[in-house]
Amino acid sequence: MQSKTSSLGEFDLIERFFKTQSALALVSNPGSVKLGIGDDCALIKTHPNEEIAITSDMLVSGRHFFADANPEWLGWKALAVNLSDLAAMGARPLGFSLALALPQADPAWLEAFSKGLFAISNAYSCPLIGGDTTAGPLNICITAFGSIPQEKAIRRSGALEGDDIWVSGTVGDARLVLAALHHEIHLPKDDLERIQARMHQPTPRIELGIALREIANAALDISDGLLGDLRHILQQSNKDAEVFLDRLPKSTTLLKQSIDTQNQYAACGGDDYELCFTAPTSKREAITKISANLHLPLTQIGRIEIMQNALPEIHLINQDGAKLSPQEASPLLQSFDHFA
Amino acid sequence: MQSKTSSLGEFDLIERFFKTQSALALVSNPGSVKLGIGDDCALIKTHPNEEIAITSDMLVSGRHFFADANPEWLGWKALAVNLSDLAAMGARPLGFSLALALPQADPAWLEAFSKGLFAISNAYSCPLIGGDTTAGPLNICITAFGSIPQEKAIRRSGALEGDDIWVSGTVGDARLVLAALHHEIHLPKDDLERIQARMHQPTPRIELGIALREIANAALDISDGLLGDLRHILQQSNKDAEVFLDRLPKSTTLLKQSIDTQNQYAACGGDDYELCFTAPTSKREAITKISANLHLPLTQIGRIEIMQNALPEIHLINQDGAKLSPQEASPLLQSFDHFA
Repeated sequence: MQSKTSSLGEFDLIERFFKTQSALALVSNPGSVKLGIGDDCALIKTHPNEEIAITSDMLVSGRHFFADANPEWLGWKALAVNLSDLAAMGARPLGFSLALALPQADPAWLEAFSKGLFAISNAYSCPLIGGDTTAGPLNICITAFGSIPQEKAIRRSGALEGDDIWVSGTVGDARLVLAALHHEIHLPKDDLERIQARMHQPTPRIELGIALREIANAALDISDGLLGDLRHILQQSNKDAEVFLDRLPKSTTLLKQSIDTQNQYAACGGDDYELCFTAPTSKREAITKISANLHLPLTQIGRIEIMQNALPEIHLINQDGAKLSPQEASPLLQSFDHFA
Repeated sequence: MQSKTSSLGEFDLIERFFKTQSALALVSNPGSVKLGIGDDCALIKTHPNEEIAITSDMLVSGRHFFADANPEWLGWKALAVNLSDLAAMGARPLGFSLALALPQADPAWLEAFSKGLFAISNAYSCPLIGGDTTAGPLNICITAFGSIPQEKAIRRSGALEGDDIWVSGTVGDARLVLAALHHEIHLPKDDLERIQARMHQPTPRIELGIALREIANAALDISDGLLGDLRHILQQSNKDAEVFLDRLPKSTTLLKQSIDTQNQYAACGGDDYELCFTAPTSKREAITKISANLHLPLTQIGRIEIMQNALPEIHLINQDGAKLSPQEASPLLQSFDHFA
């Protein structure tokens, strides 16, 4: 499958777009990376009593983004979704590796992509430390590394009966942007511009994750939809949940939509990259303080309950305090399936 | 770009083919993996005075393997090429993450792929600890992690004047298999069967890498061709090299080919996944002992020299001790370019 040439196109590309910028990022954050791009492996230092958190996400053209997607946004988002996973465990970013398949070596695309990538890399002190580049259908695979004090990782499996269920920020806007781009919904230009970053340039909640290390019993980040992702916490914790539909935090833009659309997008829209976490009621005051410190709304949307049947269940409560029927609840409890 | 469904096809697949087998592998190697598949991140423990080596390789259908490639071989090879990078630094495998894009969820393909993948995962005590699965053109991205005592990693940049240059095993067989499959060369069926594993199921030289920690000044693994890869050592060490063409270690099968084919495939065939390393002449006896202990040929093919010009050069010497002309040397000094 290999063809030979004496040109060094591939290596030139890597050098030009990634290695130089990576070196700059490393200089600004020399703490934990011992060796970056350019050898068989990268090397990271470890510190006593820490664990290394590792997460991988693969973004595929036509599936996770449009083929003509703005490459600068794409560079941001590709790392953002991984940082969001680190945030969900309470980890502090150490670095990331990038494997990239490209249909062709397009300098303009690479320049824009690397601009977005290094913008978020620098914003979160998470340098590029290694990777791979190859020809092939566009595919972006990032593996990110974070550090966390021993035994402090916030797992999905730790939810306890009586815990409050919390959500950061607002949910549903990324789905609303997608609906507008797909012409499922007409969204005025001003509204679209106000919220489009929620789809294209999500904000990983790194500082929130770190603040929650001593607070939350369970956490995850919302990528496939709030309720579908909450179900992962319930499955691993063997618990049920009660969720109050009218408490789902929504932006003023989403609040202009019909109530059905609001609930649908907020409950299972996906691509939110907010954190969903559970914590004892005794932590409410501490959580309110974190919210104020980070200037980030944190909303209590429900509570964890004992599991009543063989499988975990989410009981949705409407604004009148009544439980939704299975027919009403079903469309809100779906989750994203990449093979659908 | 997301479509919704209440089926859990994606998660079922991951569970069925990867999670169970991963759990088995973890039980047999519980040392360093704190948390495997199933949360936002995997967690690995760290130990005092160790560094973590990290490497990523992306394999693309039609580029690194044939679209109809045997999925069991593919599973083996996808991890093997990463373990080979760990070996080149002297790292001991800790675990790996797998991101996989699949055109469809084909249980027969996944079963065979996972069989090959877990065969090598278990053989090298390198458990699957996380990953991602998505629909898309077939793409396999593995990131592997290894541990190495502080300051003991063997880098490309450490070659010193007067070092011997060594190669493990034999080189050129993977290229010979490829030539036979492409009908560039007629290879008798027996010969093809004897060497085809060299292309499809390479052996990462993990134990050799570990043994070389105190021996080698520089090392890398040979993926794009011996001389092209050696050039990376020279570039990072600012050195020249003298290489004796008739010392390149070749299998008895390759030795049946014309001398030009032998030299071409051995010098720049690629896909060998042997180690090329440099070491002081004082280490020759120690290296001979390692070779005997590991039942692995180690061949001294040349030596490191002072860099004479602005760029590192490889001086090729023929069987008469004469330097090859630029015209003779040029086809042997090419390197693989994925964008060619």
